[in-house]
Amino acid sequence: MLKFDEEKILKSINGALAMRPKIEAVADELYDRGFDAIFYMGIGGTYASGIMVVDSVEGKSKLPIYVMQAARYIAHGNAHVTDKSVVVIASDSGTTAEMIEAVEKAKKAGALIVGFVEFVDSPLAKLSDRLISYPHNEQLKLFMFAHRLMYRNGEFKDYERFYKELDAHLADAFVDTSKRADAFALAFAEKHKDDSLHYYVSAGNHFGANYSYAMCYVEEQHWIRSKSIHASEFFHGTLEVIDRDTNVTVFVGEDEERPLAERVARFLPRVCARYTIIDTKDYPLKGISPEFRGLISYLVCHAVTERIDAHIEKLNCHPMDIRRYYRRLDY
Amino acid sequence: MLKFDEEKILKSINGALAMRPKIEAVADELYDRGFDAIFYMGIGGTYASGIMVVDSVEGKSKLPIYVMQAARYIAHGNAHVTDKSVVVIASDSGTTAEMIEAVEKAKKAGALIVGFVEFVDSPLAKLSDRLISYPHNEQLKLFMFAHRLMYRNGEFKDYERFYKELDAHLADAFVDTSKRADAFALAFAEKHKDDSLHYYVSAGNHFGANYSYAMCYVEEQHWIRSKSIHASEFFHGTLEVIDRDTNVTVFVGEDEERPLAERVARFLPRVCARYTIIDTKDYPLKGISPEFRGLISYLVCHAVTERIDAHIEKLNCHPMDIRRYYRRLDY
Repeated sequence: MLKFDEEKILKSINGALAMRPKIEAVADELYDRGFDAIFYMGIGGTYASGIMVVDSVEGKSKLPIYVMQAARYIAHGNAHVTDKSVVVIASDSGTTAEMIEAVEKAKKAGALIVGFVEFVDSPLAKLSDRLISYPHNEQLKLFMFAHRLMYRNGEFKDYERFYKELDAHLADAFVDTSKRADAFALAFAEKHKDDSLHYYVSAGNHFGANYSYAMCYVEEQHWIRSKSIHASEFFHGTLEVIDRDTNVTVFVGEDEERPLAERVARFLPRVCARYTIIDTKDYPLKGISPEFRGLISYLVCHAVTERIDAHIEKLNCHPMDIRRYYRRLDY
Repeated sequence: MLKFDEEKILKSINGALAMRPKIEAVADELYDRGFDAIFYMGIGGTYASGIMVVDSVEGKSKLPIYVMQAARYIAHGNAHVTDKSVVVIASDSGTTAEMIEAVEKAKKAGALIVGFVEFVDSPLAKLSDRLISYPHNEQLKLFMFAHRLMYRNGEFKDYERFYKELDAHLADAFVDTSKRADAFALAFAEKHKDDSLHYYVSAGNHFGANYSYAMCYVEEQHWIRSKSIHASEFFHGTLEVIDRDTNVTVFVGEDEERPLAERVARFLPRVCARYTIIDTKDYPLKGISPEFRGLISYLVCHAVTERIDAHIEKLNCHPMDIRRYYRRLDY
C-alpha cells in the first residue's frame, strides 16, 4: 500500500497511549491543586485540535476548558488568563514563533504551561512547566489530558474501560480502517485531484479535524483550494452556492453531533452530483464498544484522509512537504 | 446613489442607539442579580454577531461571556448552561426553527433569555424573558448590552463618553462612510462580480462580521463562492493557495487585532495581484474620538460592503433577496 508503514503506525499510536500514566500524573496534580480555567492554546493545526477538545467536552463537562488562538492572544490578550490558569500547548517542532511569544505572555500572566512537545531541547519544551514528550498523535494526547480531568470531575465514569479498549484495539483498528479505505481513497483522489474548490462539512469532534484538514493539508500541502464548514452552519449561507458540479465532502461521525452532519448528507443528493459522504460507521473498529465509537470517530476520518492524501500526492506529482511561502519567505 | 436611503439609515441607527436606556435597564437588573455565564446564542449571521462580541470583549473583560451555536447546542448540549445563566439572542423574524428549539432547551435548563427580537408576536419574542424590540442594527444592540455589563463590572470607564459620541455622530459617520466608499465599491464590484472564489481576511471585531459577510451575503445572496479566514490563521495554511490571480480582500480594522490584519496586508502584494485592502482608517468618522474608532470599525466595513453589495446586485442582475434553497425546500 502506497506510503503506508503498518509497523510504524502501530508503534506510534500504542506509544502515544502508553504515555497515559504521565499524562494522568500531570492532570491529577493540577486537578488536586485547582485552576480557574484551562486554555488549549494553538495556532493553525494545534488551534484546530483545541477546538476539537473543547467542542467535544463542553457538552458534558462543567470544567472551565476553553480554546485560545495564540496570535490573537498576543495581539489582544485574554482577561480570563490568570495565575490560576493552565495553558495546554502541543507542538512537534517546538519552534513556532507565535506560540513561543504567546506562551511567554501567558507565563507573565502567571499561567502554568502544560506542553506536549516532541523535542525536549526546543524553546516551547523549555517554556513548559510540565512537559510530555512524544511525537505526533497530537489530538489523542490532548484528549487524554481532558478526559482524565473529566474523570476526576466525575464526568467520565467509563474512563478506565474506554482507555483499556484503546490500549488493546485502537492501533489495530486504525490500521484496519486505513486498509479498508484505500480503494475508496484512490477513487476519490482520481476524481478530485484537480478540483478548483472543495467543500468539507462536518460536526462534533470532526469539525476541528475538518478545519485542520482543509487548511493544513488540502490548502497547505496539496495547494488545492478548500473550505471547511460546520454542518450546523451549512444551511445558513453556504448551501446557496452548492450546485450540480460542486465538490462537497461530508464527514459523518458518531458523536452527539452526528444528526447535524446527517442532515447535510441527506440534503446534498437533491442539489449536487459531486458529493461524497465519509461515514465512520462504515468501518468496524474491532474491539471498540459502540458507546465509545463517537469519541474516536475523528481518528477514523483521519485514517481515511491520510489515504486520500497519499494518492493525491502521487497523482498530482506534488510532494506534500513542499511549501511555496511557509518558512520560505519572511513575513 | 444606488439603493441608498440616507434618511432611513440615519433613523435606523439613531433609533437603535435610542434603545440604550432599555438595554441598560435589562443589563443592570441582570448584573445586580448575578449570573454564572452569559451566552450569546445564534446561528448563521446571529452566531457571527456573537463571535464578534466575545472576540471583542474577552481581551478586557473578566465577565463570563461566551458564544454558543444554536444547532450545536440542540444536538450536543452545553454543561455550562444552568439556571443561573443568561442566554442572549437576536432575530428579526423571530421564527428561525433551530433558534426556537435551542431557546426552549436553554429555558428547560433554567436559563433566562434576553431577546433582541423585532416582531413582538413572533415565537422567539414570546420565549424571551426580557425583550428588546427594534429592527436591524443587530451588532450594535448586542454590543450595547455587553458594554453596559462591562461598565458595571468596572471594565469600561469611558462607557458614557463613548455612547454619547455614538448618539451624536455615529449615524452621520456611517452615511458619510457609505458615500465616500461608493466609487471604490463600484470599481470593486465591476472587478469581482464574476469571481469563482473570493477570500476575505480579517481580525478582531471584523472577523465575525467577515464570516457573516462571506457566508450570509456573498454566498447566500450573491451566489458567489467565498471563504472567510481569520488573519491570525492565514499564515498557517491558506497562504499556500494564494497566487497572482487569487481574489483576496483584507479588512483592516482599528481594534487590538489590527496588527494581525496588517501583517496579511503587507504580505499579499508580494505574491498576489488581485488583492484589495479595505482599511477603516481611510474613513474620517467625524466626531468619533481616536480611542473609540476600533470599537466601531466593523461598522465602517459594513458600510463599505453594503455599497459593494448594491453594485454587485445590479451588475449581476441577481436580486439579493432570491434564494435557491433556503426556505424554498424542506430539509
